[in-house]
Amino acid sequence: MNRIETFLPIVAWGKAYNRSVLTSDLVAAMIVTIMLIPQSLAYAMLAELPPEVGLYASILPLVAYAIFGTSRVLAVGPVAVVSLMTASVVGQVAAQGTADYLTAAIVLALLSGVILVLMGVFRLGFLANFLSRPVISGFITASGLLIAASQLKHIFGVPVKGDTLPEIAEGLLSQAGNANPITLVIGIGVVAFLFFARTRLKGLLNRTGLNSRLSDIITKASPILAVAATILIAGAFDLADHGVVLVGSIPRGLPVPGIPAFSLDLVATLAGPALLISAIGFVESVSVAQTLASKRRQRIVPDQELIGLGAANIASGISSGFPVTGGFARSVVNFDAGAETPAAGIFTAVGIAIATLFLTPLLANLPQATLAATIIVAVLSLVDFKAIGAVFGYSKADFAAMATTILITLFWGVEPGVLSGVLLSLALHLYRTSRPHMAVVGLVPGTEHFRNINRHKVVTDPPILSIRVDESLYFANSRYLEDRIAALVSDSPDIRHVVLMCPAVNDIDASALESLEEINHRLKDAGIAFHLSEVKGPVMDRLKKTDFLEKLTGKIFLSQYEAVTSLRTVPYTGAVMAPAMMAS
Amino acid sequence: MNRIETFLPIVAWGKAYNRSVLTSDLVAAMIVTIMLIPQSLAYAMLAELPPEVGLYASILPLVAYAIFGTSRVLAVGPVAVVSLMTASVVGQVAAQGTADYLTAAIVLALLSGVILVLMGVFRLGFLANFLSRPVISGFITASGLLIAASQLKHIFGVPVKGDTLPEIAEGLLSQAGNANPITLVIGIGVVAFLFFARTRLKGLLNRTGLNSRLSDIITKASPILAVAATILIAGAFDLADHGVVLVGSIPRGLPVPGIPAFSLDLVATLAGPALLISAIGFVESVSVAQTLASKRRQRIVPDQELIGLGAANIASGISSGFPVTGGFARSVVNFDAGAETPAAGIFTAVGIAIATLFLTPLLANLPQATLAATIIVAVLSLVDFKAIGAVFGYSKADFAAMATTILITLFWGVEPGVLSGVLLSLALHLYRTSRPHMAVVGLVPGTEHFRNINRHKVVTDPPILSIRVDESLYFANSRYLEDRIAALVSDSPDIRHVVLMCPAVNDIDASALESLEEINHRLKDAGIAFHLSEVKGPVMDRLKKTDFLEKLTGKIFLSQYEAVTSLRTVPYTGAVMAPAMMAS
Repeated sequence: MNRIETFLPIVAWGKAYNRSVLTSDLVAAMIVTIMLIPQSLAYAMLAELPPEVGLYASILPLVAYAIFGTSRVLAVGPVAVVSLMTASVVGQVAAQGTADYLTAAIVLALLSGVILVLMGVFRLGFLANFLSRPVISGFITASGLLIAASQLKHIFGVPVKGDTLPEIAEGLLSQAGNANPITLVIGIGVVAFLFFARTRLKGLLNRTGLNSRLSDIITKASPILAVAATILIAGAFDLADHGVVLVGSIPRGLPVPGIPAFSLDLVATLAGPALLISAIGFVESVSVAQTLASKRRQRIVPDQELIGLGAANIASGISSGFPVTGGFARSVVNFDAGAETPAAGIFTAVGIAIATLFLTPLLANLPQATLAATIIVAVLSLVDFKAIGAVFGYSKADFAAMATTILITLFWGVEPGVLSGVLLSLALHLYRTSRPHMAVVGLVPGTEHFRNINRHKVVTDPPILSIRVDESLYFANSRYLEDRIAALVSDSPDIRHVVLMCPAVNDIDASALESLEEINHRLKDAGIAFHLSEVKGPVMDRLKKTDFLEKLTGKIFLSQYEAVTSLRTVPYTGAVMAPAMMAS
Repeated sequence: MNRIETFLPIVAWGKAYNRSVLTSDLVAAMIVTIMLIPQSLAYAMLAELPPEVGLYASILPLVAYAIFGTSRVLAVGPVAVVSLMTASVVGQVAAQGTADYLTAAIVLALLSGVILVLMGVFRLGFLANFLSRPVISGFITASGLLIAASQLKHIFGVPVKGDTLPEIAEGLLSQAGNANPITLVIGIGVVAFLFFARTRLKGLLNRTGLNSRLSDIITKASPILAVAATILIAGAFDLADHGVVLVGSIPRGLPVPGIPAFSLDLVATLAGPALLISAIGFVESVSVAQTLASKRRQRIVPDQELIGLGAANIASGISSGFPVTGGFARSVVNFDAGAETPAAGIFTAVGIAIATLFLTPLLANLPQATLAATIIVAVLSLVDFKAIGAVFGYSKADFAAMATTILITLFWGVEPGVLSGVLLSLALHLYRTSRPHMAVVGLVPGTEHFRNINRHKVVTDPPILSIRVDESLYFANSRYLEDRIAALVSDSPDIRHVVLMCPAVNDIDASALESLEEINHRLKDAGIAFHLSEVKGPVMDRLKKTDFLEKLTGKIFLSQYEAVTSLRTVPYTGAVMAPAMMAS
C-alpha cells in the first residue's frame, strides 16, 4: 500500500471496483437502509433531538467513513449509547427543544470529530485501551438499562425528565396515573412483536420452507414492519386526537452544509464529554470492525479508523447531525447481506437521502411509542448480566471496576460512571503491580527446577536465600522489594547469599535500579552477598550501561541452578567477587 | 514479638534496657542536641515561623517517635524540605508573621500526623511508593536550590518575597542596592567557614593527631561554633544598631500542650498539601531508617513507621510545633555517635527542653544571616546533579519525569512540582506497559531455544507463527495484542497455527482474557488454530476457572519447543483439537 492508499483507503478498494462487487454492495445497502430509517428516527428521539437530525446523521457521515475508514463493512450512524451520552451532555448546557440544544449537539459532533482525527494523526489510539473491557461492558449494560428506562415515558405517553435511574423511576411513578391507554397498547404491542420477531420469527419462517437468508432479512426488517403498521393504524384511527404522541411533520429536503454560530465557552464545556464520547464510540466501533474483518482476513488499522470515524463526525456536524459511530447490529446486517466494500455505505447514504427527500411525509403519523419500543428491544440486548457473573468469577479487581461503573452510571450519570470505572481500574492495576508476587524458592529434588518453598517439597541451603519476583520492577514496587528482602534477611541470621531470580522481570526502571543498589549496599553492610539470576537480555543490556554490575557484591547467574550449585562451594568472604558474568 | 510490642516498639526495647545502653544513648543524645539547636532555629526561619517553634518541634515529637517508631536511631525534628513545603503551603492561607500563620502551621502538623497514623492503621504505606525515585530526587534537588535561593535574602539583609525561582531572583535583583554590608560579611563568612568545615576540617584535625571520631564530632559541631562566634560578635559590636537582623528575644519556657481554635475550611484547604508533605516526609524518613537499620541487621516496619511519624507530628501540633520528619544528617550523627535505642531521642528532647528553658536568652544576638548560612550549606548537599545525569543515561522516561519535577518545582512551586512528576511517571509507566515488547520468534538451530527472528539466525516453519509477549496482559495492552496478531496474520496467508509464548506473562486480567477469546474466535474464522505455550502456574489456575480452554482451538504447551515439534506433524484441520493440556 502506498501513502495515499494508507490515508485514503477508498483509493485502494476503488481501483478494484467492478460490476459484481457493485451488485453485492447495492443489495446490502438496500437492506441496511430499511433498517436504518427507523433507527435514525429512534436514536434522534433518544438524544432528545428532532427526528430529521437522525436522518441527517445517516447520510454524509456514511460517505465520509467510506472515504477514510479501513473497515470494508462497518456501518456508521447514530447508535444507542452515544445518543444517550449526547442527551446527557447536551441536556446540561441547553434546554431540550431549543435551538441552543441542537447547536450544542452539532458542536459535540464536530468536537468529537476533531478529537478523533487528531488522535488518529498523532497515533493516540492506544489511549482508548485504558477503557478496560469490564468497564466498557459494565457501562454498556448500565446504559442499556438507563436507555430502556428513559424510553418508558414514550410507552406510557407521559412527560418525564431525568438522567439517572432514581430520577426516571420517580418521574414515572408520579406520572403513572396520567398514562395514555392507547399509547400503552401500541408501545407494549410493538415491544411484544419485536421480542417475538427476535426470538421466534426466524425459526417459524424457516419451518415454512423459506430459505434461511430471506427469513433472516425479514426478521431484521421487523422494526420497519412495526413502523409501517403503527403508521397505518395511527392514520386510520386519528390517534393523535386521542392523545397519542406522533412524530409529526418532518421537514423534507437535505441539510444545507454549514456550521451554526457557537461560543468558545460551549467548546470548553463540551470538550471533556466529547473526548469521552469519542473514546467509547471508537472502542465499540473498532471492536465490531475488527471482528468482522477477521472473518475475511481483512485488516483494520486502528489509527486510521480514528480518522475515518472523526471524518464521519465532522461530516455529521456540518450537516446538522449529532455524534455517530459504527453500530454493531447494523454492521453485522451489512456484512451478512454481502457488502464487499465501503461503497455499500455510500449507497446506504443515498438511500437515506432519498427517504429524507420523499418518504418523510409518510412518517408524520408514526407514534413515538413505536420508536421507543424499537429502542427498548434493541438496547436490552446490550444488557449482559452473564458477563458480570463471568467477570466476578475471574477477577475481583475487574469486578470491582465493573460494579462501580454500573452503579455510578445508573445512580449518578454516564460521565461519572465511565470516569470512575477508568480511574478505579487504573488504581487497582497499579495496586496489584505495586505488591508483586514474590516467593522464596528451593530446589525440587532430582531436578534443576526451583519452586515456592510454601507450595512444594523443596531443598534449601540455609546460607542461601533464593527469591523469585514475578513482576517487572518499577517505582511502585521497588521499595516493597527492599522491605521484603530486609524482613527476610533480618529473620534469618544464617544467610550469607541472597539470589534474586528475575525470569519474569521485563523491565527495571531507574527507581528499581536504585532499590537494587540499596539492597546490595545494605546486604553488604550486613555481610551478605547479593546475586541475580536469569536476567533477561534487554534488562541486562541496560544494567550494563550503569555501574551496578561493578558494585554488585555477587554475580549474575544464567540460571538459578547454576547460582545455587556455584554458591554452595563458595562461602562469601565479604569481599567483592570476580567480575560479574554476562547473561545472554 | 507480641501484639503490644508491634504497636508500641518501646515495650520491646525498653525491657532490655541497661546501664551500658544508657551510656551510649546519653553520649549520642548530647551530640545530636548540640547539632539540633541551630537546625531547629534555622528550619523555623525557613518555614517563616518564630524561632521558638523550631525548638518546640524538637521536643515532644522526639518522645512520641521513641514510643511508636521502629527505627532505633532515626532522629526526627524539623527538616529542610518539609519546612520549605510548610512555608509554601501556609503562605497561601495566611500572612507571614500573623497568629493565623502559626495556627495554619500547627494545623498542618496535626493533619499530617492524623493522615500518617491513618495510613499506618490502614496499611496504606504503599501509596508513598508512587513517588518514584527520579521524582523524589528531582524534587529534592529543586527544593535544595529553591531553599538556598530563598535564604539569600537573609545573607543580603533585604526583604524578599516569593515561592519560585523567578520571583526570588527578581526580588533579590530589585533589592540588591539595599544590601547590608555587615550582614553580607557575616553571611558569606559563615558560608565559607561551614564549607571549609565540611570539606577540609576533618582532614586537618586528623593530621594534627586527633582521633577520627573526635575530629568527626568537632566537624559536625561546626554550625554551633559559627552560631556562638557570631552571637559574640553581634553582641560585642552592637550589630543590631548597624542594621544586622538578629533572632531577637525568644520566649523562655516550654510550650503549653493544646490546640489552637481553627476552622473546618482551613482543614479542607490544608488536607491536600498535608497529604503531600506526609508522603514526602515519610519516603525520606523511611529510606534513612532502612539504610541505618540494615547496618545492624535491624528491621523497619514501614506501616508502623507511619504511626511513629504520625505520632511525632501530632505531638508537634499539640506543642505549638510544625511538621517534622526523620532527618538524614541528624540520624547519621545519632548512629555514628553510638545511639542504641530510641531512648537517645528522648534524651535529646530533654536536652532541647533544657536549652529552651535556659539558653534562649543567649540566642537573642544570633544574626539571621548565620542561620541562613547554615541552611544554605546544608541544603546544597541535597542538590544532586550527578543523579540527573545518571537517570538520563539509564532511562529517558524516568528522566522526563525528573526534569518535569525539577522545572515545575523551580518555576511554579513545590506542590505542582511533585504532583506533575507523580502523574507523568504514572502515565509513562502505563504507556510503556500498554505497548509491550513482542517478538516473532524462531528456533535457534541445534537448540530448543526460541529467539527474536529479527535479531538472531533462527529457523521458522511458514504455517506456524510463534509470538512471544514480554509483559503481563491487562486492559491497557490487550487490544494492542489483538491488533498485532491480526496484522501479522493478514500479512501471511500461509499461517495455520499461531502460538503465543507466555513465559513473561505474570497476569491475564478480564480484558486480556476477552482479547484472547477474541483472538481465538477470529483466528478460528480464518481457519487458524490458536495455541499458548509456557503459561505460568498461577495464570493457568485462573484460566482453568473459565471456559477459555474448552473454546481454544489449539493446545496449551509446556514449552515452545514442544509446541513447534508437535504442530509440525499435525496440520490444522479446522476442528477443535483434543482437550487442552495442563501446564504446570
